[in-house]
Amino acid sequence: MGRITGTTRLLAVLGDPIEQVQAPALVNALLERVGRDAVLVPVHVRPADLAEVVAGLRRVGNLDGLLVTVPHKIEICRYADELAPAAAFTGSANALRREAGGRWRADNFDGAGFVGGLRGAGHDPDGRRFALVGAGGAGAAVAAALLEAGAAHLSVCDTDPGRLDALLRRLAGRWPGRVTGSAAPRVRDADVAVNATPLGLRPDDPLPFDPAALRPGAVVADIIMRPRETRLLRAAAALGLAVHHGIHMLDHQLECYADFFRIDR
Amino acid sequence: MGRITGTTRLLAVLGDPIEQVQAPALVNALLERVGRDAVLVPVHVRPADLAEVVAGLRRVGNLDGLLVTVPHKIEICRYADELAPAAAFTGSANALRREAGGRWRADNFDGAGFVGGLRGAGHDPDGRRFALVGAGGAGAAVAAALLEAGAAHLSVCDTDPGRLDALLRRLAGRWPGRVTGSAAPRVRDADVAVNATPLGLRPDDPLPFDPAALRPGAVVADIIMRPRETRLLRAAAALGLAVHHGIHMLDHQLECYADFFRIDR
Repeated sequence: MGRITGTTRLLAVLGDPIEQVQAPALVNALLERVGRDAVLVPVHVRPADLAEVVAGLRRVGNLDGLLVTVPHKIEICRYADELAPAAAFTGSANALRREAGGRWRADNFDGAGFVGGLRGAGHDPDGRRFALVGAGGAGAAVAAALLEAGAAHLSVCDTDPGRLDALLRRLAGRWPGRVTGSAAPRVRDADVAVNATPLGLRPDDPLPFDPAALRPGAVVADIIMRPRETRLLRAAAALGLAVHHGIHMLDHQLECYADFFRIDR
Repeated sequence: MGRITGTTRLLAVLGDPIEQVQAPALVNALLERVGRDAVLVPVHVRPADLAEVVAGLRRVGNLDGLLVTVPHKIEICRYADELAPAAAFTGSANALRREAGGRWRADNFDGAGFVGGLRGAGHDPDGRRFALVGAGGAGAAVAAALLEAGAAHLSVCDTDPGRLDALLRRLAGRWPGRVTGSAAPRVRDADVAVNATPLGLRPDDPLPFDPAALRPGAVVADIIMRPRETRLLRAAAALGLAVHHGIHMLDHQLECYADFFRIDR
């Protein structure tokens, strides 16, 4: 880190727990590299304390913005004055910044980070067919970003019919004719199959879908970051399929954060 | 600075303005030197926002304490659950820490820092006679600390009779028989004369007292840090008197903070 003085501007990342967050190391390295007199600090906030902590932080004159992680990404939207499209669509946010007039704007870069990661790995979504497993918060963010980025078709599956139908309705309303849904995974004709469920966090989790059902040359992507090599990705690699690791999403979120917080690189 | 990660503990210094604070540079250098995974950040808080900001910061799970500077040193006492003797006596605090049970304890190290600085320069107050000019917040802190440290006699002067009498009554109640007061400075028989007024911050300020009235061998001390060489200290030095700079008070406050926040050195 560069030297912190009285002129240093603040960013804070809110989470519970907080010890595992990667953002301070990544963002501070970036801030230091570009010579910005600002620092990102970890802020441990329990859910019951979120309202009070955010109210206090909003009044801090040298605080320019917040990053938000589990479990506050949905609740934090209540404290924003305006929601960017991705935050409005997903109903969750992972970044807030103070605008010139003092209003707080929330955005969600889960989807944009995932798409940026795909592009960086040579898998531009434009014109490709996707199968997405998991219609929760991360799945919704990834689905919207893939369609926004020009995916030719998106098949979404989730074992919870209510959650699946709700997401499909909202996706079809905005991107009509490009989305289908099912309770069981349909990955057979996908160019890229994406796991957006928590399956794979634990070593004995079942596979979210069977990579053997994919055609040769398809890509298997996971949004799980730890472990880096999930059971799904190991199985896909063993089948000779291309794999795309969860960490790429975070790497490219960093670029999104830099743009959002106007950190010139 | 060492690397900030999710495990890093937080300290914050509150002020308005904040740009001028020296504490982040000094305390962070100390934290880094001893390998403590903690960081002190500047927090700009306007007076009208103090209650809300402090309420929020108290709920931050990885925040261990606060430093407090102008203009919040008096008001901050309202948010402490307990006041250490120096904070209770002066009615102002410049440090708060979270205790094991979650209570917040406030202390004031202005006086202790000044006494530590005197001792460090070879002027132990024990048994010495002091003349103190200025019965405001800083003067009260210095007065109490000098008497606590064994000063044989303290003469306090202030042009505001109400403020002077109030301080004298409280000093005499705790250290009877060792304190006198006057509207005009009485420095003639002092071993050490101390300026605790703001006179000297500006180059055209009048002298708080006439150093020529001191006996040879006496010490003239100033609590003003900038400019380092106040008009008073320059005049005293020109007379061949020993001088004691304001910066010593801050240097020794750093040691007080380290003890208060349990930073092993």
